[in-house]
Amino acid sequence: MKLSIINEVREKKPLIHHLTNNVVINFTANGLLSFGGSPIMAKAPEDAGTIASVADGVLLNIGTIKQEEVTAMIEAGRAANKKGSPVVLDPVGVGASSFRSSIVKQILKEVHVTAIKGNAGELAYLVNIPWDRKGVESIGSGNAEEVALKVANTFNTTAIITGETDIVCNGEELLYNKTGHSILTKVTGAGCLLGSIVTTCLTTEERPEVQALTAVSFYGLAAEYAYSKKEVKGPGTFLPHFIDALGYDIEELRRER
Amino acid sequence: MKLSIINEVREKKPLIHHLTNNVVINFTANGLLSFGGSPIMAKAPEDAGTIASVADGVLLNIGTIKQEEVTAMIEAGRAANKKGSPVVLDPVGVGASSFRSSIVKQILKEVHVTAIKGNAGELAYLVNIPWDRKGVESIGSGNAEEVALKVANTFNTTAIITGETDIVCNGEELLYNKTGHSILTKVTGAGCLLGSIVTTCLTTEERPEVQALTAVSFYGLAAEYAYSKKEVKGPGTFLPHFIDALGYDIEELRRER
Amino acid sequence: MKLSIINEVREKKPLIHHLTNNVVINFTANGLLSFGGSPIMAKAPEDAGTIASVADGVLLNIGTIKQEEVTAMIEAGRAANKKGSPVVLDPVGVGASSFRSSIVKQILKEVHVTAIKGNAGELAYLVNIPWDRKGVESIGSGNAEEVALKVANTFNTTAIITGETDIVCNGEELLYNKTGHSILTKVTGAGCLLGSIVTTCLTTEERPEVQALTAVSFYGLAAEYAYSKKEVKGPGTFLPHFIDALGYDIEELRRER
Repeated sequence: MKLSIINEVREKKPLIHHLTNNVVINFTANGLLSFGGSPIMAKAPEDAGTIASVADGVLLNIGTIKQEEVTAMIEAGRAANKKGSPVVLDPVGVGASSFRSSIVKQILKEVHVTAIKGNAGELAYLVNIPWDRKGVESIGSGNAEEVALKVANTFNTTAIITGETDIVCNGEELLYNKTGHSILTKVTGAGCLLGSIVTTCLTTEERPEVQALTAVSFYGLAAEYAYSKKEVKGPGTFLPHFIDALGYDIEELRRER
Repeated sequence: MKLSIINEVREKKPLIHHLTNNVVINFTANGLLSFGGSPIMAKAPEDAGTIASVADGVLLNIGTIKQEEVTAMIEAGRAANKKGSPVVLDPVGVGASSFRSSIVKQILKEVHVTAIKGNAGELAYLVNIPWDRKGVESIGSGNAEEVALKVANTFNTTAIITGETDIVCNGEELLYNKTGHSILTKVTGAGCLLGSIVTTCLTTEERPEVQALTAVSFYGLAAEYAYSKKEVKGPGTFLPHFIDALGYDIEELRRER
Repeated sequence: MKLSIINEVREKKPLIHHLTNNVVINFTANGLLSFGGSPIMAKAPEDAGTIASVADGVLLNIGTIKQEEVTAMIEAGRAANKKGSPVVLDPVGVGASSFRSSIVKQILKEVHVTAIKGNAGELAYLVNIPWDRKGVESIGSGNAEEVALKVANTFNTTAIITGETDIVCNGEELLYNKTGHSILTKVTGAGCLLGSIVTTCLTTEERPEVQALTAVSFYGLAAEYAYSKKEVKGPGTFLPHFIDALGYDIEELRRER
């Protein structure tokens, strides 16, 4: 985890254009604001490109995707490519229907994405590696590494696989993160907000794999910190403390626990 | 209230497909996760049927309905009917416009619903019983029972009328629930989340009226428990404690109050 | 600030029809409920006019606007105009794209709005006064007053400019408000919810500029109060206390701080 990345975000307050799902849109905006970024949400095809071209980064999350939104996603992604700003893809539930997988294929054909973030099953689906979608996404079997490497190389991107241990891969190197807390599985959109934090960190001056690793490490640390608060008795009371923690300094998160 | 229903939900974590309104979508997902179910939200007509066919139950809530969403609701409902999994209809504000009432009629014509949940005015509207929509939805007058019986028999379903006293009706029997707290009227989507909890309970091995009664009883108990917390000073601070309480055991909810 | 306005809202619980953005829709509903109003959200063009005609006021917020929603906004606004109930426009990010600015122009051509609420940059854009959109929206330069006067006179409306000092203008008089807290800039939709509170206050028996000033003063006071709570450690823990505070009496907000 590189402290300078977090500090640069908080100094520059990067404007991140979100084309994300309706379940998590408010949580994502509040989480990113607390962390130090500036969220903007706009899904109209008429101005998605314009807004992406003034933003510092773009997040494409297909959680509640409808056909009409695909054009806006591609316009925004292309505008970011043209500008040279980062684009992150979160292929939520890509394997759940042929509709979703065809949309993700279309996006990946039209837009170069700086990073793809998802769980092992989602990323495995993208590169045709069989994955038991009901099974536990452990990395003990070693398969998740294979998935990360193949995704990074196939799409010339940074692969981020979330799980009990998170994996970040630039196509050659494999980096691991152990911070985090299982309470996050009880908060809807925990993965989606992480996508936003990753996008923000990718706007700084560093290599993508270091930026991504910093994002997931910090995020997990904030979760651990928030969960350690005596006021937290479940996912409902965890949530406000987690939003707070995303705005703290790393030293604070480490000291007070 | 049957404890075995709650326990079965928590063991099996049923996947509930929500076609619900944008106001409550995040709150519903977090509430269901805390209770023990697994939410999925998808409203694209292209994959609503596919997703419903892998889910364990379907919730149709017309709160912010648009014409384009009706096809997805019917596809999802039919897929659930074909699979034999429960479908719950929440006809939010059905009497507010002819547009809404025609959509509800269309859904009820194309889909068999396991339960219909709403306030007395909404359910009265479905069976053409006059109801003072500005009046207090007391059951003192005895009208709510008449409404519940007529809804259950007309649509061959379980009718659930929420109010100070909740009524569950299988067409013959009338069951009552007294748990709950008036603070819920200050939390948007309190009724909508209940629809999700009901759907989840309907996936277990029991008779629908017992499943529905268990859902409303537990829900009310969780509200009473959360409101009793000294940290709660209004609807804002109530909400996180309520989400927490939905994940507790019944014994805990009863003991700690 | 006139206490009678707040009291009248709490007695009558005005029904406010919101055509607002998906980021803030839940927060807005919960905030308005706590304050004392009754929210309804409906964006279908088929029934937006019907619902507006039974409501006591209408809020038009273009935050995540799509082309298909413009008809519903105009239908709702016209129905409110016909009925004589207040309409508030919140031109979120109007200057961000030509798509947004053309929609706002169309709304302002078809609907008479009782008040326009936004930051100085947004309102300056509406009347072609140059404004540095990256600059601090201080009123020290005196420009914000010019903007408020021109907006109020051009659109025959009440202009409300939010910032460190809020300005309310009826076209002649300029009123100022100093309550508020900078933590609100870390909560997504803080401005959007204020639009809803303003709409509600405009349904009472008073002059619009007094109603608007009461709304912004009370809102700022509630933020100051909530932030003063010892439980508040950031924007996440601020939020539930702020929702609570919106439901308190003014005396309580002033006394307990």
